[in-house]
Amino acid sequence: MNINIPIWISNRHIHLSQKDANILFWTWYKFEILKELKQKWEYAYKEIVSIVGTKWTIEKVRILWPFRKETQLELLTQDLYKLWIQAPIRISWDLENSWKWAKIIWPKWIIDMKNWIIIAQRHIHISDKQAKKYNLKQWEIIKIKTEWIRSVIFENVIVRVKNSYDFEFHIDREEWNSAWLKQWDLWTIIK
Amino acid sequence: MNINIPIWISNRHIHLSQKDANILFWTWYKFEILKELKQKWEYAYKEIVSIVGTKWTIEKVRILWPFRKETQLELLTQDLYKLWIQAPIRISWDLENSWKWAKIIWPKWIIDMKNWIIIAQRHIHISDKQAKKYNLKQWEIIKIKTEWIRSVIFENVIVRVKNSYDFEFHIDREEWNSAWLKQWDLWTIIK
Repeated sequence: MNINIPIWISNRHIHLSQKDANILFWTWYKFEILKELKQKWEYAYKEIVSIVGTKWTIEKVRILWPFRKETQLELLTQDLYKLWIQAPIRISWDLENSWKWAKIIWPKWIIDMKNWIIIAQRHIHISDKQAKKYNLKQWEIIKIKTEWIRSVIFENVIVRVKNSYDFEFHIDREEWNSAWLKQWDLWTIIK
Repeated sequence: MNINIPIWISNRHIHLSQKDANILFWTWYKFEILKELKQKWEYAYKEIVSIVGTKWTIEKVRILWPFRKETQLELLTQDLYKLWIQAPIRISWDLENSWKWAKIIWPKWIIDMKNWIIIAQRHIHISDKQAKKYNLKQWEIIKIKTEWIRSVIFENVIVRVKNSYDFEFHIDREEWNSAWLKQWDLWTIIK
């Protein structure tokens, strides 16, 4: 099935819990919105944090809104080498057995992260209506193929269906770079 | 064909010409070998350079030996955004139409690079004897498939046959990260 799916390229980012936000920032601090993301009710804040590992520090990690129940850090694979930590590949809310530690620092105080660090598994967001149209089901595993000098077939792409979702293929910056596509290029879904 | 190909993961690196080495370093300077690479007669030097673009500077770019006729800079895709330049995907000696400019700086003087900047196209090195065994031909285009949580099929992999080559699959750090393999995992060649 040849369809043009809009692509969302994730860089490393962090979702904070209200509790952790109050540790890192002063309680009177007002977060500012940098831009609206395509999925409804999601925003990137102007605020950033630094992540400190045993080997290196990663600066300018963007904070996303809304706050979540638990703070969740989504890294790029290369960051694991930089921080000298391990983390599993997960879709974002499935945090079981994710590990290990790093420190978040900014600007008021420090948080030790002992869990909830993941590498995002590639996935597509799609509304119920669109899912029906393309015959895709919640949690279905599909492949997505690209056509270019660095053509790649991405396997293990998870389908996430929800009424409020807009059709979008989410991959991280390294996956995107490995395929060398233009954002408006055509992707093929293989089932 | 399921075979275990050793993988070589490239980071960004630079091949200097003797002329440019004499501009960047003093003529009395003696380069030191850091390690031998798997392909015969290739070494990584201890020496590094910085690459300066309009937006950012990339530090610690490793110099490889031997020197070549022309200085050639091999970047990661992400570096193009950092330096704010463009470059084509090429196999290493095919430098036609590669562009644009960046500065190499270290420690004596500066070089303007107006050409010879590329992103390496993934390829395998293989000896004549091994090529015969696996029925692979010089310049043949093959696919390489991985099996893992981030399973990927890499298309457009170029076969390079030469007697002195050791069997090796060359991809860059971002391609490697996008597939999340262990170096000793099994790769499948698809023709």
